[in-house]
Amino acid sequence: MHNNREATLKRLNRLEGQVRGIARMVEEDRYCVDVLTQIAAVRAALKGVEKLVIDDHASHCIEDALASGDREDQRAKFTELLELLDKARG
Amino acid sequence: MHNNREATLKRLNRLEGQVRGIARMVEEDRYCVDVLTQIAAVRAALKGVEKLVIDDHASHCIEDALASGDREDQRAKFTELLELLDKARG
Amino acid sequence: MHNNREATLKRLNRLEGQVRGIARMVEEDRYCVDVLTQIAAVRAALKGVEKLVIDDHASHCIEDALASGDREDQRAKFTELLELLDKARG
Amino acid sequence: MHNNREATLKRLNRLEGQVRGIARMVEEDRYCVDVLTQIAAVRAALKGVEKLVIDDHASHCIEDALASGDREDQRAKFTELLELLDKARG
Repeated sequence: MHNNREATLKRLNRLEGQVRGIARMVEEDRYCVDVLTQIAAVRAALKGVEKLVIDDHASHCIEDALASGDREDQRAKFTELLELLDKARG
Repeated sequence: MHNNREATLKRLNRLEGQVRGIARMVEEDRYCVDVLTQIAAVRAALKGVEKLVIDDHASHCIEDALASGDREDQRAKFTELLELLDKARG
Repeated sequence: MHNNREATLKRLNRLEGQVRGIARMVEEDRYCVDVLTQIAAVRAALKGVEKLVIDDHASHCIEDALASGDREDQRAKFTELLELLDKARG
Repeated sequence: MHNNREATLKRLNRLEGQVRGIARMVEEDRYCVDVLTQIAAVRAALKGVEKLVIDDHASHCIEDALASGDREDQRAKFTELLELLDKARG
């Protein structure tokens, strides 16, 4: 990663703390729906991290492949994006 | 579209019939949860159509951009895919 | 359905027209990404219809089950909601 | 939580390790798409934890509300499920 490296690490660090917080809630027998709300918060945080990595990928790896003119590298980048899209569509 | 044209039209036709079927269910005061089940079926069908269009896009439009060596066309194709990915991530 | 019947039918009618519009785009060989954008619009419209049906279900079928005091009906309503939740989580 | 307590804690523990692993990948400048694949794995793991909590909620909290005959508690349980459904629909 390039641009978003520090921001990504900071968010992953916070995310790790959030997951630990959910474990603590389960240990303390907190109400299921409150646990589910925290799980939703972690999912949203994860989506934010993913966005940072995708943006970095677009502005570096993909731009490099464009600049290189290397058709096989470009095809690989397209294939990866199409696979990510397929997974994201669920 | 190229390869998947007829298959896509056939599916869209069936999908239109499914939507009309849901309207009929609502008119006939059918049970809400049965209506919701049919809506889920339409959503799944829509996802199938989308897959056909994406595959066609990959094997034609994107391949053309790769073959052309036209960097601006290639960048446009990447940008479109990244936007589709962003929307699909919800 | 009760409250949202007419609104739901109006939306389903429009949705049917949107699906037909996509078929026309495919017939006219429109650009794949424009077709995908329209598919995304249909998915969003479908989600809106689903919301109306869920709200209606909540304010009628579920309220009736609560008022009845019929435990088996209530259990059935919970089970249906849990199944809908499971499907929605993808 | 009741039945799934230990299984949930075990999974959360593993999930925490997975998040830490992603941070390590970012620190080691691993390829973006490999990071994205690990993020997808964490999202899937999170969905598994969520499923355990929902099942536990269904077989305990909801069953208790049904057994109690307490209409306000039952209504609260329905409202919570409807909110979870609304969020899950995205």
